[in-house]
Amino acid sequence: MPVETTQFVAGTRGEWRITRVDAVIGAPLPPSQRLAIGPSATRDDPSAAWVLRGVASYARYTTRPEQDALVAVQPPLGRADARCAALIPIAKSEAWWALPQDERRHILEQRSRHIATGITYLPAVARRLYQSRELGQPFDFLTWFEYAPESAARFEDLVGVLRETEEWRFVEREVDVRLVRDEEA
Amino acid sequence: MPVETTQFVAGTRGEWRITRVDAVIGAPLPPSQRLAIGPSATRDDPSAAWVLRGVASYARYTTRPEQDALVAVQPPLGRADARCAALIPIAKSEAWWALPQDERRHILEQRSRHIATGITYLPAVARRLYQSRELGQPFDFLTWFEYAPESAARFEDLVGVLRETEEWRFVEREVDVRLVRDEEA
Repeated sequence: MPVETTQFVAGTRGEWRITRVDAVIGAPLPPSQRLAIGPSATRDDPSAAWVLRGVASYARYTTRPEQDALVAVQPPLGRADARCAALIPIAKSEAWWALPQDERRHILEQRSRHIATGITYLPAVARRLYQSRELGQPFDFLTWFEYAPESAARFEDLVGVLRETEEWRFVEREVDVRLVRDEEA
Repeated sequence: MPVETTQFVAGTRGEWRITRVDAVIGAPLPPSQRLAIGPSATRDDPSAAWVLRGVASYARYTTRPEQDALVAVQPPLGRADARCAALIPIAKSEAWWALPQDERRHILEQRSRHIATGITYLPAVARRLYQSRELGQPFDFLTWFEYAPESAARFEDLVGVLRETEEWRFVEREVDVRLVRDEEA
């Protein structure tokens, strides 16, 4: 069963209105108005400022106890009250990718508490991770988060905690795109 | 640094002559004459019987001791005497991909000795693993092996041992393509 590619098109169309595009580490992405998310077969927006692609694939580090804990509390995407979103594309260094699996896992979880920290922000923040590296894209992952306006401060806290970790020393490009889903017109 | 996609084109061209195409598990691939391997930007052979794409990406299960052991003994591809090759595309079941990382690792290595077994066949057999799943391809991996004619029996032994493992119960499609590099004309 082939895996489906998801495409994020920043242009003049889409359900999400872009409110900020910040270059956190490395090169920025151009500002744009709206973000459309869909299958990669979607026709490209000719006015697109940028297009990113990723695959929601299998988990690379999660253990059984972590997976069970996540499944118990993680909310679905698309909740009606989750009108805020963040698209945070990330690229890690060649030094990261050259590490063996056990050392990547050790930095990510034993030293940086990436999975354990994330769980404490559930169910306020719904998340999906898209793998991009194998697609020859400029980022290794596209991380997507949805939350209600009243959880915005919690989300800033989560992002801030992760950026202080040892794992983040291997991040060589990170852009933070913030979005809101407009009320029905 | 974007990762490069490698394309395997079975048609009338290419360095490798196809000697056999066997469906081991599940649907076959059509027989063809030759295999050309190159970057995905290469123009497609209009006569191609099939085209498979993959990415030589980071190791998903290898630990530091295993990686060090592999680096110490694994030969490069393209050795002059390694005139035999095998391209073995493999797809695993959804049940495999739904397992958390620690359980996949446990089946692959603690129970199936995939990495440890592979090491014992080095340096006779040179190998490269291409990830295909994220590219929306019909296979999850394209495994590529090169060996000298005098190591052919050893290679059959390696393939036979792996196919008897617990890991292989999760394989739902496997095709075995054998090839030879012709002597200079």
